Amino acid sequence: MPLSPESPLPPGSVIGILGGGQLGRMLAVAAARLGLKCHILAPKGDNPAFEVAHRCTEASYDDHAALATFARSVAIATYEFENVPVEAAETVAAVTPLAPGPGVLAVTQDRLREKSFVRDRGIEVPQFLPVSSLDDLGAALDRIGRPAMLKSRRLGYDGKGQAVVRAEDEPARAFDSIGRVPAILEAFVPFAGEISVIAARAADGGFVAYDIPQNHHEKGILRRSVVPASISSTTAEAAKAMAMRLMAELDYVGVMATEMFLVKDDERERLLVNELAPRVHNSGHWTIDACTVSQFEQHIRAIAGWPLAATSRHSDAVMENLIGDEVESWRARAAEPRVALHIYGKSEARPGRKMGHFTRLMPGI
Amino acid sequence: MPLSPESPLPPGSVIGILGGGQLGRMLAVAAARLGLKCHILAPKGDNPAFEVAHRCTEASYDDHAALATFARSVAIATYEFENVPVEAAETVAAVTPLAPGPGVLAVTQDRLREKSFVRDRGIEVPQFLPVSSLDDLGAALDRIGRPAMLKSRRLGYDGKGQAVVRAEDEPARAFDSIGRVPAILEAFVPFAGEISVIAARAADGGFVAYDIPQNHHEKGILRRSVVPASISSTTAEAAKAMAMRLMAELDYVGVMATEMFLVKDDERERLLVNELAPRVHNSGHWTIDACTVSQFEQHIRAIAGWPLAATSRHSDAVMENLIGDEVESWRARAAEPRVALHIYGKSEARPGRKMGHFTRLMPGI
Repeated sequence: MPLSPESPLPPGSVIGILGGGQLGRMLAVAAARLGLKCHILAPKGDNPAFEVAHRCTEASYDDHAALATFARSVAIATYEFENVPVEAAETVAAVTPLAPGPGVLAVTQDRLREKSFVRDRGIEVPQFLPVSSLDDLGAALDRIGRPAMLKSRRLGYDGKGQAVVRAEDEPARAFDSIGRVPAILEAFVPFAGEISVIAARAADGGFVAYDIPQNHHEKGILRRSVVPASISSTTAEAAKAMAMRLMAELDYVGVMATEMFLVKDDERERLLVNELAPRVHNSGHWTIDACTVSQFEQHIRAIAGWPLAATSRHSDAVMENLIGDEVESWRARAAEPRVALHIYGKSEARPGRKMGHFTRLMPGI
Repeated sequence: MPLSPESPLPPGSVIGILGGGQLGRMLAVAAARLGLKCHILAPKGDNPAFEVAHRCTEASYDDHAALATFARSVAIATYEFENVPVEAAETVAAVTPLAPGPGVLAVTQDRLREKSFVRDRGIEVPQFLPVSSLDDLGAALDRIGRPAMLKSRRLGYDGKGQAVVRAEDEPARAFDSIGRVPAILEAFVPFAGEISVIAARAADGGFVAYDIPQNHHEKGILRRSVVPASISSTTAEAAKAMAMRLMAELDYVGVMATEMFLVKDDERERLLVNELAPRVHNSGHWTIDACTVSQFEQHIRAIAGWPLAATSRHSDAVMENLIGDEVESWRARAAEPRVALHIYGKSEARPGRKMGHFTRLMPGI
């Protein structure tokens, strides 16, 4: 069990974070602002979060001795990365409170379980069918039609492990391209837009959600988030209510992103849940610069039993990612007024790698 | 020489900071946001900046071997603390660019030199006279009158090394209370308010200043800064022009705070410079939460040769310090809407010690 608002974790305590990427880095900075220290465990590699952490452990997620030692050194633990193996999460949770809990990972690491979980709560998702073989895929295509999306059940992010099957495509090729792993076939949704709900839930059920951003992807990677989204206030409230419902059903503690498709039937707006991200999320980065309290601090508050903060926003904002060698534009971006620049300190700007972001503020709302 | 805008320090580089307190901590976090790493050198003790730094060296300021090793490990160095010994600054500056330069410290560490420097540039300061003996003090009191302020020439901050000499006071007692060290006697200024100019200057002479806060002290320690100050726009512009002039004359690079007294003669507003702080300053902490780019990032930008940022402010703000055991109110402060809470992670809440601060935002300006 994570800490409750009756016994919040006092300043000076140590929080453990599994994962050393930019999300861990921004979590560590947010924790430091509250006087909390971070111990970060991450596998060998480029771990920019290590630069701003009180303590670091380099260990793989299957080194259970290291995980247990790590867990004993912290008052509470969390993760920045939804593909932390459930077994690693369980090892940590056996020693210290872990939030969100390992059960959340078990649901969200498997697209089939995740989509079934959402659908079974009466919340709409794109039509989907499990695919374990080429025969399954053929049958699923017959039922769902084309175009459709073939997605691996596990380890998919930033467009990896996905293939579109269009009218002219050979199903076997799509199945090969994702490595013939267990998958789902999903109906293609002709969406008018994509949005996400960035929300926090406390151990006592307290819930807050930020204003909803509209997200624009390119090649499966988030390009830009614009807040507020161009949706009606009714739709915005419905989206938040769905996130609240799902987080309550997961007994969730911390920040979660619920990604949704916005469909317009004539003039009516309808939402379908696309994906749950059990962590702080790229589409919430604008909260650092446009809100009094960011999604990162909100997550730390939730898991540490601190009061959740009002999600008040002082500015409209556009957040844009710096991907791969786009980070080389840092000097020009730094010179723009009302632009907050964030560089993650990664050593190598590989194609498709998120190297930083910038948020353009439009205050006076 | 610090870096110039023609050759800014690229992300991934290491900046050295002398001093491990809360100012160093907030500088390190600001540097990390730009993808820059920090190596902090500070004497043994409670160094909260170490929690968020890439690398730390515990060494005293007279350990010149350690200072030289530190200096060789960084691309550029700065300090968070104006009482770094000039000799320590010179050791560092012999190896790597140091900004602001050691010459700035030599002026600002000595109240007599500092006040003479300002006065000699035609900028008004309270009347002052040097005091080296009890005889000097008697003569100075005859000329300046009472009440007057006796201030040690060196190592004064947060009201330390100061004594008021009122009509009924025995001068010897005041001189004893500051340890009979070289001092100045300063006329008591019946000020209507205190303000500070938080400004940044680049190596190419570029200059930006934030909107001016009004500062309220209690027992010689900053209690609260309110932005904007209740001053006319003419006075605000005059204050910024004075700071710009002084920083240019010092060939200053980085953020400096110029503290001023506001005097009202009938309805006319007049400014007297009280003190120069060659560093980021407590009365500028609200910039973290009310501006796109904080004083801390601005300082890093200036010394690293990055473009200075627009000082645009999206909210009015009141910053209040948490002094000594006031930090125990963290839970209540964290629950207030539109309040950004900052806890410095110091281990012991001694009386008079700055343990954190909070900024209340009033957006929509």
